[in-house]
Amino acid sequence: MTKNRQISLLGSTGSIGTSVLDVVRRSEGRFSIKGLAAGKNIGLLLEQMREFKPKVVGIMTAELAEQIGSIREFAHIEVLYGKQGYKAVATIDETDLVVSAMVGAAGLIPTLAALQAGKDVALANKESLVIAGPLVTSLAREKGAAIIPIDSEHSAIFQCLKGHRKEDMRRIVLTASGGPFRDWKTEDLYKVTPEEAVRHPNWSMGAKISVDSATLMNKGLEVIEARWLFDTPVDKIDVLVHPQSIIHSMVEFSDGSMLAQMGIPDMRVPIAYALAWPERLKMDLPGLDLTGPLTFEMPQMDKFPCLRLAYEAARKGGTATTALNAANEMAVEAFLQGRIGFMAIPEVVEYVIEDFPVGDIRELDDVLRADALARLKADNIMQGLE
Amino acid sequence: MTKNRQISLLGSTGSIGTSVLDVVRRSEGRFSIKGLAAGKNIGLLLEQMREFKPKVVGIMTAELAEQIGSIREFAHIEVLYGKQGYKAVATIDETDLVVSAMVGAAGLIPTLAALQAGKDVALANKESLVIAGPLVTSLAREKGAAIIPIDSEHSAIFQCLKGHRKEDMRRIVLTASGGPFRDWKTEDLYKVTPEEAVRHPNWSMGAKISVDSATLMNKGLEVIEARWLFDTPVDKIDVLVHPQSIIHSMVEFSDGSMLAQMGIPDMRVPIAYALAWPERLKMDLPGLDLTGPLTFEMPQMDKFPCLRLAYEAARKGGTATTALNAANEMAVEAFLQGRIGFMAIPEVVEYVIEDFPVGDIRELDDVLRADALARLKADNIMQGLE
Repeated sequence: MTKNRQISLLGSTGSIGTSVLDVVRRSEGRFSIKGLAAGKNIGLLLEQMREFKPKVVGIMTAELAEQIGSIREFAHIEVLYGKQGYKAVATIDETDLVVSAMVGAAGLIPTLAALQAGKDVALANKESLVIAGPLVTSLAREKGAAIIPIDSEHSAIFQCLKGHRKEDMRRIVLTASGGPFRDWKTEDLYKVTPEEAVRHPNWSMGAKISVDSATLMNKGLEVIEARWLFDTPVDKIDVLVHPQSIIHSMVEFSDGSMLAQMGIPDMRVPIAYALAWPERLKMDLPGLDLTGPLTFEMPQMDKFPCLRLAYEAARKGGTATTALNAANEMAVEAFLQGRIGFMAIPEVVEYVIEDFPVGDIRELDDVLRADALARLKADNIMQGLE
Repeated sequence: MTKNRQISLLGSTGSIGTSVLDVVRRSEGRFSIKGLAAGKNIGLLLEQMREFKPKVVGIMTAELAEQIGSIREFAHIEVLYGKQGYKAVATIDETDLVVSAMVGAAGLIPTLAALQAGKDVALANKESLVIAGPLVTSLAREKGAAIIPIDSEHSAIFQCLKGHRKEDMRRIVLTASGGPFRDWKTEDLYKVTPEEAVRHPNWSMGAKISVDSATLMNKGLEVIEARWLFDTPVDKIDVLVHPQSIIHSMVEFSDGSMLAQMGIPDMRVPIAYALAWPERLKMDLPGLDLTGPLTFEMPQMDKFPCLRLAYEAARKGGTATTALNAANEMAVEAFLQGRIGFMAIPEVVEYVIEDFPVGDIRELDDVLRADALARLKADNIMQGLE
């Protein structure tokens, strides 16, 4: 790489964030960390500050910021909090690349701030595109900022398309592990516990995304994400279940040729690609074991209605996917707290989106209003108020 | 495509040649055929002349050329014969792309002629690179001519590398069907008949290449071809048996990410890619069926010594691979004629290359002399003279 690349990391204490830092740690000085933003995990954030010496730090609340500010060792670091703190980290002057790895809809505003400042964004926060695809992609185009996906599926598609003409693409095939309940009977899905849902067979990741993976909503969100990232109609995006998670996604071209990206199921591989793009790092990870068979099957949309609901919302467009995401976030949170059952998640989502007043997305307020309305509706139905 | 692409086709009546013409036929006027060159199959050549209306035609002998010349319908077509005829077809002024699809070492001279004339070459004749890799690749570089592979494996690698930095490539993984005798016991291989050896499980192709596929020499020749096409040490090229022939080859990059090209086992897919490159045709072929499992295993070099011999020759370099190819051509011909057994093929090759006086390849004569010497040695050993 011609020069050291300076990084702002939003969501540094999460599953993606810590993997990003591990890649930086292994990159022999090719990257440095200018900014770190986290939620409430102050213990881990302090360790990260000690190791990576950022210039600016953002944390969720004023109290936590004050706590950090009182530590003498960090007196020279600018510590900010809340939305303003996250925006500040996303727009540090020296930063070349902003890694957007906050969980959920909260990642949108700092992602927009980064693009507004013309920063390239390595995007792990799929919600930014799911809830506000038109805003995010048009802003990136306007500012000439690149969006490099970190999600392993989208990184795969991005790598498969690189060097090939977009107009020759016939379809995208997003692969899915099928989640931990692929082989379960539908009636047993009603009894799934939060503990069972957060154990993902192939990837190590956070609770929310593990549940999404179990309901196949994660794959649905990825379909919507791909629709915006690759500027392609949702009907050119197919999902194929591939339980081994070796092929991370594929692209089919007009001549019948397909390209697939493969690798070990380790987030550090797509992270390394996003950080070093358009170059590649030398990563010293275990090689891919290609001895086992690779299998494929069609997704079971009846058993896992969330995937079908995501396609429906994507076809409607506008704020329909904003509502889908908000309803799903509410339902998953309720499920993790034991307030609703596993199969109630798609029910809540379907209830919210089926007669949602879908509008165009012209500005951030359109997104925020749709998000709030969908959360209200989800909350009402879960409390039995509607 | 911005303009109609004019093609000279060397080897028009062979298995690849007829597939090339089928792609041209389906391409709705995006290609036209300026020249056709064939061996002795005058019947098929005349049909092709009628359909594709070339300007120049080359055929093997003066008698055949005279026969064609005497047909009034073709009076306006220039008909030439032998090496001069093939060279003439390879260097037609209007030709943009020369498809080099003659079988065996005979394809080298017209391929060199095409490159010398600055024509891009779509290369199916792997022997050109196997016997004279340094000549062919340095001439292409000097003349700024592109070499686009037609072999499905090399087309796969070419597609996987496109858009990615060569210096980030860690290794090439050439896939192999394993041939029809993959599951046979070694002792049974001694009894293989020519009829059994020419039935290939996945691809329809000519007799010589079918036998090479059965001995795994074809894969060995492909390793050598890849070594030159992608300018990479042979030890960065691995072979992996993949009996379903769905993944046509893969590239592993320094960050652990792999790209694979997949498709139905139909030569028209890589042919279409080579003809339209860097664009793609719309091909109306059956879609890829990804329901069955994809499996992989290591090649059995003990049971199929030809692959090991090819690696050995490739490591020696210079005229060692020229000798390997010549010995193999002689041995396969003798096997097809019932003169030697199947397992005598690697024996003849090993005998010829083990003490072959390997030299550098600086000019065509180095190749021709090594080729002739290897053929003489192969002939002698098969006649029991050495």
